[in-house]
Amino acid sequence: MQLNNKPIGVFDSGIGGLTVLRHLVRKLPNESFIYLGDTARVPYGNKSAETVKQYSLQCATFLKQHDVKLIVVACNTASALALDTLQAEFEIPIIGVISSAAQAASNATHNNHIGVIGTRATIASDSYALQISGFGDLKRALHHVHSRPCPLFVPLVEEGWLNSPATRLIAEEYLRPLIANGIDTLVLGCTHYPLLSPLLQSILPGVTLIDCGECAAEDVVGLNLTSSAESDNANHISMYVTDYSPSFSKLANQFLGLPVDEPTLVTIDSLVQSHGATKLG
Amino acid sequence: MQLNNKPIGVFDSGIGGLTVLRHLVRKLPNESFIYLGDTARVPYGNKSAETVKQYSLQCATFLKQHDVKLIVVACNTASALALDTLQAEFEIPIIGVISSAAQAASNATHNNHIGVIGTRATIASDSYALQISGFGDLKRALHHVHSRPCPLFVPLVEEGWLNSPATRLIAEEYLRPLIANGIDTLVLGCTHYPLLSPLLQSILPGVTLIDCGECAAEDVVGLNLTSSAESDNANHISMYVTDYSPSFSKLANQFLGLPVDEPTLVTIDSLVQSHGATKLG
Repeated sequence: MQLNNKPIGVFDSGIGGLTVLRHLVRKLPNESFIYLGDTARVPYGNKSAETVKQYSLQCATFLKQHDVKLIVVACNTASALALDTLQAEFEIPIIGVISSAAQAASNATHNNHIGVIGTRATIASDSYALQISGFGDLKRALHHVHSRPCPLFVPLVEEGWLNSPATRLIAEEYLRPLIANGIDTLVLGCTHYPLLSPLLQSILPGVTLIDCGECAAEDVVGLNLTSSAESDNANHISMYVTDYSPSFSKLANQFLGLPVDEPTLVTIDSLVQSHGATKLG
Repeated sequence: MQLNNKPIGVFDSGIGGLTVLRHLVRKLPNESFIYLGDTARVPYGNKSAETVKQYSLQCATFLKQHDVKLIVVACNTASALALDTLQAEFEIPIIGVISSAAQAASNATHNNHIGVIGTRATIASDSYALQISGFGDLKRALHHVHSRPCPLFVPLVEEGWLNSPATRLIAEEYLRPLIANGIDTLVLGCTHYPLLSPLLQSILPGVTLIDCGECAAEDVVGLNLTSSAESDNANHISMYVTDYSPSFSKLANQFLGLPVDEPTLVTIDSLVQSHGATKLG
């Protein structure tokens, strides 16, 4: 086992990635973390692939400058659209949230009908379907993937309407075709969606829900890039955001499941310039 | 009447401002327009005042560089948080969407109970309440303003759910306190909301709905900065966006009520740099 006390970097388009960080913190109690939420440009899920790649490069550059040992792309949209670009640009390991969730869904299904829900950009990218169908894997080739964008779920979660009649009505509308397809497994392909798990599970009794944050945390555990238990920084989280709005702390506590320290503000200008500087250097 | 064939600049956080442009185009048939939608950073409504000011300065600088004769801030959030900053920075007239809608609401009410709905940032700014209550105006001082943020309306409109049962349920929930307050006038303080007018009117029979885009267009007409009827550019719209996503054209046509030309992409980097350059120059 290789000892490495550098922090783990995590970025997301906003606060959603805190549901991923939540699992990382639990499964890796000796690690320290640097989290960057790009709250000034949130959401990524309705933006183009080019823009999401550019923003992701800037976020990853910021984390790299803070000397992280690996980067977790906690945002599904960024994982879908920018993971290859990031892996080509940086030498440290870059972990997305899609491949491990796809593997978990493949393991979980019994009837080979897997549903995937996410933002418009994530679903349009077809990343989950490609990963779930595998690359030449015979078992996976039998899987049928049924995808559906659910763009209203993020604002509903941020409004705190986790179990309101309107949310239920919208969820029933979104899930109707997936139910008709007979799915027995559903990938929650957006970091906000685990907060809707109780509601979704009540609409989909007997269906296995896959939390991509939990799967990604397992992926990171598997890397064995562990810090020593004696590290002073164990389980310390340094929190950065590109915009600080009054609702941050309340939502962040809810998403992380822990009290969140006051975040440090990083300006977009410095983010843009730092990626430019790195490219020139 | 002063002849001036320069175009009118309009900017918004995204496509919502096209509901404002729609009224401008109708009321000013001899004018040409340059529209900038900051789709790479949309929405502004859940971001901090500092960030909204910075983005607005960059958008206005872009329009100024295209030699516009006046700028219409079509975004309610930007009007609420950045209008003063813009007016201090630029010498050309800058028109927001709030003061004329506030005036129209003041004229329309009979019982002095006016409702205002908008994004979180617009409502938190209290701009409508301050404008409606007037500055020493005796009649306006009698007005009671009842405000409510409605953050789910924008994603519902963009999802195209203008009259779905879920949208009705959400609208009833949002409007309940305003109905209890006995409003007879409601300001639609966000450019997306006019698309929900039929639904809102059915929940609020007898209540006068104020469309801020229509009011702002009246304001611009009042400036008499007219182009000559013979101008080659009459009613031409040059469309710019900071991010181009596949859903743009469909939504843009719906918001503008006219076919929209393919937009030109402006990168955020160039927007950031151009404002910096202007400040230095």
